[in-house]
Amino acid sequence: MNSIRVVGVVGLGLIGGSIAKGIKVRLPEIRVIAFDRDQESLNIGLQSGLIDEAAVSLEALMESCDLICLCVPVQQLEVCMPAFKAFNGYVTDVGSVKAPLVQNAERLWGGLPSNWVPGHPIAGSEQHSVHAANADLFVKHKVILTPLEGTAPAAVEQIRQFWVALEADVIVMTVEHHDEILAQTSHLPHLLAYTLVDVLAGFGDEREVFDYAAGGFRDFSRIAASDPQMWHDIFITNQGALLNRLQTFIKALQETADLIEQGKSEALLERLERAKQARDYFSQLQSDESSGQ
Amino acid sequence: MNSIRVVGVVGLGLIGGSIAKGIKVRLPEIRVIAFDRDQESLNIGLQSGLIDEAAVSLEALMESCDLICLCVPVQQLEVCMPAFKAFNGYVTDVGSVKAPLVQNAERLWGGLPSNWVPGHPIAGSEQHSVHAANADLFVKHKVILTPLEGTAPAAVEQIRQFWVALEADVIVMTVEHHDEILAQTSHLPHLLAYTLVDVLAGFGDEREVFDYAAGGFRDFSRIAASDPQMWHDIFITNQGALLNRLQTFIKALQETADLIEQGKSEALLERLERAKQARDYFSQLQSDESSGQ
Repeated sequence: MNSIRVVGVVGLGLIGGSIAKGIKVRLPEIRVIAFDRDQESLNIGLQSGLIDEAAVSLEALMESCDLICLCVPVQQLEVCMPAFKAFNGYVTDVGSVKAPLVQNAERLWGGLPSNWVPGHPIAGSEQHSVHAANADLFVKHKVILTPLEGTAPAAVEQIRQFWVALEADVIVMTVEHHDEILAQTSHLPHLLAYTLVDVLAGFGDEREVFDYAAGGFRDFSRIAASDPQMWHDIFITNQGALLNRLQTFIKALQETADLIEQGKSEALLERLERAKQARDYFSQLQSDESSGQ
Repeated sequence: MNSIRVVGVVGLGLIGGSIAKGIKVRLPEIRVIAFDRDQESLNIGLQSGLIDEAAVSLEALMESCDLICLCVPVQQLEVCMPAFKAFNGYVTDVGSVKAPLVQNAERLWGGLPSNWVPGHPIAGSEQHSVHAANADLFVKHKVILTPLEGTAPAAVEQIRQFWVALEADVIVMTVEHHDEILAQTSHLPHLLAYTLVDVLAGFGDEREVFDYAAGGFRDFSRIAASDPQMWHDIFITNQGALLNRLQTFIKALQETADLIEQGKSEALLERLERAKQARDYFSQLQSDESSGQ
């Protein structure tokens, strides 16, 4: 991190704003410049001291920065990419699906430049504006980096150190593995939550359905408060892995339905107990981690 | 409530324990007696002052009580019911599915006695022991009563006043309507959560899947920590309404999958936005309620 003096943030939303705030708190010697199509977000960033300067264009940003974090949704990333041809500093991004970045780079430049380290912080909330920026958003959260064969080891090391400085746990894996894992643990649950809320709202009197919403439904519906455009982009760009997992899920759901319909009490209970065991195991992992074990 | 001097609680778990604690805090003049097959729960109840006395049998409990709350899971309720033939006080229960109670009563006695008011507090948590007993568990939560044609209006009024004294919002509806509504807002979400956790645990390395579990999945998996036996009973006893809703959900899920697969971007975004709007509307209702509007 010694060579980094100016960090650029493209897209000053929850993630970009939290990176900026994290730098201000933990790396006060680093200057932060941001670019966003929304002038209001930049104004908030300046007024609240999250950023030192607002760039007037992507090109202006590049002239001043050693490292640029692209914090825009997957499909907007595609629009920004061509401008990065001439940039020689380090670049990372935060997209929830990694394959489209690689595909776009191949189409644009015959491959991802060696100074670009694809990344994905596993952090966020249903809020998505700079107002929710949080200097501790990444603390003890995983950040996955998915360097390619041609990625410069020095670039990977710089980006790794950058996230470590924001107190994240950095893990390296392939693009394909990342997209598979996230399809299961994040994209599929979001698809289910959106669909469930939509279906429930369609059953008769909406007010009544929501009035009697018990705990279970509240948790689901919180997920469906996330940004529809962002999730649209994720679902479309990770459709291979996602649809694969979704079909497995639908099959399991149909199996559970059959057990209930046929009154196969023992097999149903076994299935529910297996799920609870897996959940308790997960819960134990989480509490071990938070107690530092 | 003037005529109630002794309340009996059958099943001293989260719900039974919270009723007992709520009485101790809000109706200190009322004596609370509990019966549970698990002596340890009764000991905890006595030691922590939740109950005044532990009954040695259901029959002993009935001799002393003016009102009895049956706080046992749906299928255990069936086992307790025959003993209530001779009880003349008021009775209510807390089962999450109401039709089986009515069916059992018809089989046993040709109909539910007029002193029995079927009920269901929409409150709970993934914890389910007396250790989690909470005097405020029902405050501002809905309690649904589903009296039948033959239920005595005086009994309905006593049970209503009882729940109002615990600061719950009491609503009256039919058994059928209750089971339909809950299938949508509670039983279906739990079925999805259990199935999702089970499916994820089955995809390759369990540890890795849970390691990268993002926010969305955490919310789901919390639901799957609920008591498997209780949910088994609910799924089996409300299978008609539940399977009906589940098929509608699977259909909607398949439609969403088709939109993604066929790249129908606009229709997909519309669906996600509709869900978010419904969710935001729900969220607004909740905050209006908590601010007393």
